[in-house]
Amino acid sequence: MAEYLYWSIYQFYKEKISSGALPPGAKLPSVRKCAAQFNVSVTTSQTAYLYLAADGYILSRPQSGYYVTAQRFFKKPQAVPDMPDKTPPVLYDFSTSNVDRDSFDFDLWRRYVKSAIRQDDRMCSYGEPQGEPELRLAIAQHLEKHRNVVCSPDRIVIGAGVQSLLQLLCPMLKGKKSVYFQNPDFKQGIAVFEDHGFTLENTMEKAGVLYLTPSQETDEKTTPARLRLLEQARERGQWVIEDDYDGEFRSVLQSPPRYQGLDGGRRVIYLGTFSKLLLPSIRISFLILPDSLCDVYAPRRTLYNQTASKTEQLALARFMLDGHFERQIKKLRRLYHEKAAQLKMAINTVFGSAAQVQFVKAGLAAKLTVQSDRSAQKIQKYAKKRQLFVSPVENSGKVTLLLSVTGLAANQFLPALQALKRCL
Amino acid sequence: MAEYLYWSIYQFYKEKISSGALPPGAKLPSVRKCAAQFNVSVTTSQTAYLYLAADGYILSRPQSGYYVTAQRFFKKPQAVPDMPDKTPPVLYDFSTSNVDRDSFDFDLWRRYVKSAIRQDDRMCSYGEPQGEPELRLAIAQHLEKHRNVVCSPDRIVIGAGVQSLLQLLCPMLKGKKSVYFQNPDFKQGIAVFEDHGFTLENTMEKAGVLYLTPSQETDEKTTPARLRLLEQARERGQWVIEDDYDGEFRSVLQSPPRYQGLDGGRRVIYLGTFSKLLLPSIRISFLILPDSLCDVYAPRRTLYNQTASKTEQLALARFMLDGHFERQIKKLRRLYHEKAAQLKMAINTVFGSAAQVQFVKAGLAAKLTVQSDRSAQKIQKYAKKRQLFVSPVENSGKVTLLLSVTGLAANQFLPALQALKRCL
Repeated sequence: MAEYLYWSIYQFYKEKISSGALPPGAKLPSVRKCAAQFNVSVTTSQTAYLYLAADGYILSRPQSGYYVTAQRFFKKPQAVPDMPDKTPPVLYDFSTSNVDRDSFDFDLWRRYVKSAIRQDDRMCSYGEPQGEPELRLAIAQHLEKHRNVVCSPDRIVIGAGVQSLLQLLCPMLKGKKSVYFQNPDFKQGIAVFEDHGFTLENTMEKAGVLYLTPSQETDEKTTPARLRLLEQARERGQWVIEDDYDGEFRSVLQSPPRYQGLDGGRRVIYLGTFSKLLLPSIRISFLILPDSLCDVYAPRRTLYNQTASKTEQLALARFMLDGHFERQIKKLRRLYHEKAAQLKMAINTVFGSAAQVQFVKAGLAAKLTVQSDRSAQKIQKYAKKRQLFVSPVENSGKVTLLLSVTGLAANQFLPALQALKRCL
Repeated sequence: MAEYLYWSIYQFYKEKISSGALPPGAKLPSVRKCAAQFNVSVTTSQTAYLYLAADGYILSRPQSGYYVTAQRFFKKPQAVPDMPDKTPPVLYDFSTSNVDRDSFDFDLWRRYVKSAIRQDDRMCSYGEPQGEPELRLAIAQHLEKHRNVVCSPDRIVIGAGVQSLLQLLCPMLKGKKSVYFQNPDFKQGIAVFEDHGFTLENTMEKAGVLYLTPSQETDEKTTPARLRLLEQARERGQWVIEDDYDGEFRSVLQSPPRYQGLDGGRRVIYLGTFSKLLLPSIRISFLILPDSLCDVYAPRRTLYNQTASKTEQLALARFMLDGHFERQIKKLRRLYHEKAAQLKMAINTVFGSAAQVQFVKAGLAAKLTVQSDRSAQKIQKYAKKRQLFVSPVENSGKVTLLLSVTGLAANQFLPALQALKRCL
């Protein structure tokens, strides 16, 4: 293969500009003159110039020629690139996206990751498109034992987060072009459906797909209500997606059965995720195919590469099969239950009878309502200054805030609430 | 929260059925009778029965009642679940989807993974939607140095594989509804476009998006041809996607400049991947946003969670910044160059002048053409029996096979080719 002539011209000028021999604003010879000087074709010198321009060394001015830019000297990569949403550090984060740091046994997890990456053979090939077999087995066994969900390992599809699974699912829901979201704030789910040409319906009646998030309901639907919903979905020919986010935090005895189980796995697509149970940085979610979608999935199986990390899948499978996952869930349930009681006490101490409190999201968050004339935007601004993260909603002189027990340590509740009170 | 009454009924019958006290075929009392026996409402006993049915213990026969199934006893999870595409073990794999096992320093990589998972703080939060900042910095520096691609870290978007990135990209290419694939065999790329409602065009002229895979070209386009293509794309208002798969295996001096650089980063979307350079199990790819898409991406940034493993991103960033990635590429280039020469010799030894050989795919694969009356399907079947994986294409009495140098060890070439010869 030949060395490219343009390359030497590129290097020549790059050197001249970098060293300062050609200062910003200096004009380069015309493309034609350059070609003559280097004894190459005009195309070659043109390519060299385009390359220099592409790399930011020179700029073309129409009807004039090429000039050295100043830009290059400001463009050096920085030690840490700027992030578009750089925010001041948050001391008290009441959002639901964090887990309790002390709840997770990092050393134990690290042992499983290390053992997974020790499997050279497995690391040298692509992952199974549907997900590693051991992990699907571990999930099926877990679901059978703890969630009363109908499932065998070959029905489980693994993905890096619920969005990845929805990307796979949307084109499989043939003929359906509208979706109802029980939680209209789940923007990331809505985005995927909209990307696939779905329209958003405000009511259940007309939608082709129902996206349900039962653990997020304030008043959880009873079993008869669930059965009625499934019956109606059958009559209307609707698909039901059951996103059991946070579902692990409700024990089987404390919560109505899953739609998936009630339906016998026929038209309910069940989604589960591990981010909140282990670490948010572990992006492993799964989907359970209903009978009616198995034939649709089969030919698509090898068309979609697995997105979840093979290392983390193998580590998690072993972690589950050894019983650590079950222990972790029990530990988290106990911990969050205790923290909920502590948060309730702290709210009572700080706000007294001025506040209304209700526990929602499978008991993981307190819905706090207090009197305040300030706008939600202002409260959030003041909160930010006090290194507090909250998402208030205003409603005729009142403000409602969702305070998650997951991210903060119990001893942070009091100071965080006191800081919050000053913002309202 | 109340315990659910149906649960005790469910447990009662589950026990009876599991223990064999109620054998397969036995009829359960009617829903109404069951309700009376347990002193519960009919809805409650109905729920219990639905649950038992959902879990496979009983089955409803219309107008008759509920019966114990035999199914349950066959449904026990197996040690390893059945995989839909179970195939006999392959001894000689000539496909391009494997890497040379000996080329990778597993111990070194393991050290970086271990160091990444030691960062407890980072592991406790979700990943940056666009990709971890250090990794984007490392990629930008690498590209600047080695690929002459125009790029700053804020233009880079990380994803778990090229498909994940295309899922993100497709909805951003507004108003375009047709795509041309330079490599029509790239089914996984085509699938994503089709999922987003794109139609496939056979020629470049009419397509709204051109999906180019320059390293896969047998006769690589020269710089003037590339510039012409870009000029035409500009005139036609087409987007150009440059998938630089295997591009690292061509040194800058041996290959024409990237479209992305020639275009100055205006309408070319550049895609790169690490699977072939490190390990196929490491699913990290990246996309470079052109100027014209930055405004489209900005509001979408937080709508899409990161799919790539945070652990592996942090490990790879450090690995790159410490210079190991560069060394690995140089090592692989040298190794594959040597192996290509050895494969050529082996082909000559086994097939002599009866075969035509041409090296394609950035020098990573030999295109072997030999006389054979057998159909491609038959050859593949015979090959499978000899534990050989090939994908032959037949063409009027001749057969063409693509033999990758990546997966096999050099000392396997001769026996593999001898086995292949017997299949033709």
